[in-house]
Amino acid sequence: MNYKAIIEDIYERVQPFLGHGRVADYIPELARVPITKFGMAVCTTDGDLFQVGDAAEKFSIQSISKLFTLTLAMQLEGEGLWQRIGREPSGTAFNSLVQLEYENGIPRNPFINAGALVVTDIILSHLHNAQRTVRDFVRQLADNEEIEFDTAVAHSEKITGYRNIALANFIKSFGNLQNEPVDVLDAYFHHCSLAMSCSDVARAGLFLANKGRLLQNGEAVVQANQAKYIKSLMLTCGTYDSVGDFAYRVGLPGKSGVGGGILAVMPGKFSVCVWSPGLNDTGNSLAGTKALELFTTVTGVSIF
Amino acid sequence: MNYKAIIEDIYERVQPFLGHGRVADYIPELARVPITKFGMAVCTTDGDLFQVGDAAEKFSIQSISKLFTLTLAMQLEGEGLWQRIGREPSGTAFNSLVQLEYENGIPRNPFINAGALVVTDIILSHLHNAQRTVRDFVRQLADNEEIEFDTAVAHSEKITGYRNIALANFIKSFGNLQNEPVDVLDAYFHHCSLAMSCSDVARAGLFLANKGRLLQNGEAVVQANQAKYIKSLMLTCGTYDSVGDFAYRVGLPGKSGVGGGILAVMPGKFSVCVWSPGLNDTGNSLAGTKALELFTTVTGVSIF
Amino acid sequence: MNYKAIIEDIYERVQPFLGHGRVADYIPELARVPITKFGMAVCTTDGDLFQVGDAAEKFSIQSISKLFTLTLAMQLEGEGLWQRIGREPSGTAFNSLVQLEYENGIPRNPFINAGALVVTDIILSHLHNAQRTVRDFVRQLADNEEIEFDTAVAHSEKITGYRNIALANFIKSFGNLQNEPVDVLDAYFHHCSLAMSCSDVARAGLFLANKGRLLQNGEAVVQANQAKYIKSLMLTCGTYDSVGDFAYRVGLPGKSGVGGGILAVMPGKFSVCVWSPGLNDTGNSLAGTKALELFTTVTGVSIF
Amino acid sequence: MNYKAIIEDIYERVQPFLGHGRVADYIPELARVPITKFGMAVCTTDGDLFQVGDAAEKFSIQSISKLFTLTLAMQLEGEGLWQRIGREPSGTAFNSLVQLEYENGIPRNPFINAGALVVTDIILSHLHNAQRTVRDFVRQLADNEEIEFDTAVAHSEKITGYRNIALANFIKSFGNLQNEPVDVLDAYFHHCSLAMSCSDVARAGLFLANKGRLLQNGEAVVQANQAKYIKSLMLTCGTYDSVGDFAYRVGLPGKSGVGGGILAVMPGKFSVCVWSPGLNDTGNSLAGTKALELFTTVTGVSIF
Repeated sequence: MNYKAIIEDIYERVQPFLGHGRVADYIPELARVPITKFGMAVCTTDGDLFQVGDAAEKFSIQSISKLFTLTLAMQLEGEGLWQRIGREPSGTAFNSLVQLEYENGIPRNPFINAGALVVTDIILSHLHNAQRTVRDFVRQLADNEEIEFDTAVAHSEKITGYRNIALANFIKSFGNLQNEPVDVLDAYFHHCSLAMSCSDVARAGLFLANKGRLLQNGEAVVQANQAKYIKSLMLTCGTYDSVGDFAYRVGLPGKSGVGGGILAVMPGKFSVCVWSPGLNDTGNSLAGTKALELFTTVTGVSIF
Repeated sequence: MNYKAIIEDIYERVQPFLGHGRVADYIPELARVPITKFGMAVCTTDGDLFQVGDAAEKFSIQSISKLFTLTLAMQLEGEGLWQRIGREPSGTAFNSLVQLEYENGIPRNPFINAGALVVTDIILSHLHNAQRTVRDFVRQLADNEEIEFDTAVAHSEKITGYRNIALANFIKSFGNLQNEPVDVLDAYFHHCSLAMSCSDVARAGLFLANKGRLLQNGEAVVQANQAKYIKSLMLTCGTYDSVGDFAYRVGLPGKSGVGGGILAVMPGKFSVCVWSPGLNDTGNSLAGTKALELFTTVTGVSIF
Repeated sequence: MNYKAIIEDIYERVQPFLGHGRVADYIPELARVPITKFGMAVCTTDGDLFQVGDAAEKFSIQSISKLFTLTLAMQLEGEGLWQRIGREPSGTAFNSLVQLEYENGIPRNPFINAGALVVTDIILSHLHNAQRTVRDFVRQLADNEEIEFDTAVAHSEKITGYRNIALANFIKSFGNLQNEPVDVLDAYFHHCSLAMSCSDVARAGLFLANKGRLLQNGEAVVQANQAKYIKSLMLTCGTYDSVGDFAYRVGLPGKSGVGGGILAVMPGKFSVCVWSPGLNDTGNSLAGTKALELFTTVTGVSIF
Repeated sequence: MNYKAIIEDIYERVQPFLGHGRVADYIPELARVPITKFGMAVCTTDGDLFQVGDAAEKFSIQSISKLFTLTLAMQLEGEGLWQRIGREPSGTAFNSLVQLEYENGIPRNPFINAGALVVTDIILSHLHNAQRTVRDFVRQLADNEEIEFDTAVAHSEKITGYRNIALANFIKSFGNLQNEPVDVLDAYFHHCSLAMSCSDVARAGLFLANKGRLLQNGEAVVQANQAKYIKSLMLTCGTYDSVGDFAYRVGLPGKSGVGGGILAVMPGKFSVCVWSPGLNDTGNSLAGTKALELFTTVTGVSIF
């Protein structure tokens, strides 16, 4: 498969979509990102990397971090995790409190904010320094020691994140956080603030296409069946309240963030990351979703 | 009407109900109140006070404070208040977040926690020192300079009040708090912690039976029509998710608190406060509700 | 009190409100009623009747019938009624199915459609011919043998009433109807179709202001305490999702219908019926609510 | 892959699970099916059929029919279908009315009852005889002219199906049915009553593993991309409120029915049907789900 030619073609074809949608504007650091940015990077299990456009530029990975923190929590806690978090799609918005109230503080899945807060709580209970550990874990996955938090983003999230503060305290009121909400939130906001490029993210997600192992050294990040589990969760819960639509149109397990990034994975073959900050109505990158749809259509590759 | 004989008779008749229900136990200060306490005080617009049992003992008024803060906010803000708070019964639990999510951060009424937080925010925006002002306002209403916050209660509420913290931050996320949640909560927890006796509370509520005026000096606390408005809100929203049942059985506007107190008012005639810490399933005093039901049955007095 | 002068004055003052709001248009028989109609009738416990405007013209009483069927069901079933219906305000629209699902088929109160269907089912289980019995009961209350169903309305309700059909079948699925939905619905649609004038309705509701007794012969329709219960239910549940607002502005127990009629009652004094087909956003008569608000303001009479 | 040995091994290993769970008992025809039944059939795209246990015995396919009616509706209506039905997991029970109310009568996906009713309505609008057409379509897919409705089941569904009657009328009330509810329901109940064996169902689903084409003659049932779409919908919405769990444990697109059958598909490789009437808490076959989990674990085949 000539991935290079394919993504260059896609880069052409998404041009009319750039500038559409809405850039996340709840914090100034995200609001000021130019809406016309577009990058795409593909990492194959053969060890190749293909990229196009702004694929080397760092962006705020936001909820894509939920994939990395979940992976780390599965390492640390194994199946015990599912005592405290469900694994069903929520049928509601990513930051909804309604579901929590009806289901007594058990988040529906690890990819909505509530679930990621519990995941963060689990990491905090295991590790002395949750923030640095997560950063180092992501560095290891991406094979890039330069990856850092964007502390301005983390700070802005913190001072405006009333809804996430509400979520954490609500979960705590049900007894489903072991640590204090303020500490869980601090770590969570930092995880969301990780600044990475499309190439970084694609590389960091490659283990999911590679039976849970790092390509660079063959080391197991998680067991092969855990890698499958994570991909199944991406497919059923990874793209907010449009997982059905994403599975329908793209046909790959994916995880998106409001920074405009989306990571998707084809088992055995490749990981791919697109980034474009204009979001559609369901909070996923508009041009990014289109690019992935074109990618699976042109390559004829999908899990279905 | 021989109120003295009537409430003494009621005191006898509620004995079998004392010890039933559940004392609020989310903070130790409430949990340790003996469940068999019972007090009742009636203040008439003729200036008489009748009391029985533990009517002189101080208890934590909790949500009864919502009546006093609403009154103060009506003084300060008038009808403008209703831009930010509804006046409909909620149909859900007093501390539910669901309704807020469906109705964009506008609490259904001033007597659920969410509504009282917005009321507190309004007071905070008007006054330099919301806590002291509210305490002084209640002292004036009750004609008792000794009334104080129970700071142990306020402190316990604060360190365990995750759900209220969630509520305040959730409302803030919709833009319906002007002040910082932490400040609103601090004032709110203090208001709830006011320690008053049945006599204090009955006296403090007498202006509602007296066309909005203090009996002691004829001064208008609120206008006569505002006093009517407050009573209508008590009837439709004052006793959590059992307003229909309370109206059905008691037939008076009332406001209850999880400390076991209930204040009720008969326009033109009297205010009455009962206190007994055992709560029924809907969070209202079990023996207190029974006592009020007997009171309106025996006296034949109700608004219906 | 010079009721005659007062309602004539009100008739003048509501003129600017006539023609506003929306006439119910889900069936042609309601849609074609001229929006500028306005009638008002007051019946006093002294035996006087005062009326103004179109007070003698028949209109479709719709949900006001829920008050009469509830009264009949209380006669037939007494307190047992509350095993199958709640008595709390719903906090949702009058025809909502959501609440039923969360509360296992127990309607929140007898004045939402779901509750009235259960009330109708109870009447059906007791009586051979529910329709005729209800009609005859209303004739007796109103002291008018001419009162009839508007069969065109009943027929239109039936052929377009998909939501009510859904409600009845949903309740049946929870086991809270004893009869077949189709039979309950047929009776229900007939009850709603009763055609009465303001004078008829005011007269029919007078027993509620008269301790449960018919004024014409002193006969008890229900016991005095049952009359109180019904009025408390009117106040907390009688005007759809605006009971708080109605209590706030009007301050009387009331029951409204989408035909534009509202019946309200002042215990010991009078019953009053207004009719004007333009509805406000919550489905209550716009000019009718305004007229009642003026009425309690001018007379200074309210239960609060 | 030695499918024969594998499914025989699984047949052994599921023995301890037979007899557990609950047989659907809302109609006598389902209630009387012996809970210990178990059958499994695998059809490969190479044209082989492997079966074990009660794989040749007919059972009531119930909601598996939703897969066949959706396929037919995609043939008839194409993408226009999605104007009237969503494609997101519901996050609520399969027969919930709550979601419909919040989303104005647009069912969340074609695999909940509400969605299948709209699908049936679409078929009815296109075809003269929806029942016979669907039966003939399924016969063609399964290459078995003997497949018939179980009219006793269809009749029982009809006389006890109050909740489905409620659903259809509720959808109609939002204008999202073109035909009368009674006609849509009649067809729907017949579709659910189709009696098929595991071999029949596996064969009928094979086109989904075969790029949308019948294996027997290469004819396209739907286009290849439509086959992908259907599989993505099975994965995100096919197993009621446990799609996440099913994807996690089984890792194949699947569609289950309360008769105890489950059809799953591995693109390019095989279709598999299991049947065992004992249901788990989420309404899926308990032993059937276990068998599929073993199947993908042993074969190492899953889409992830």
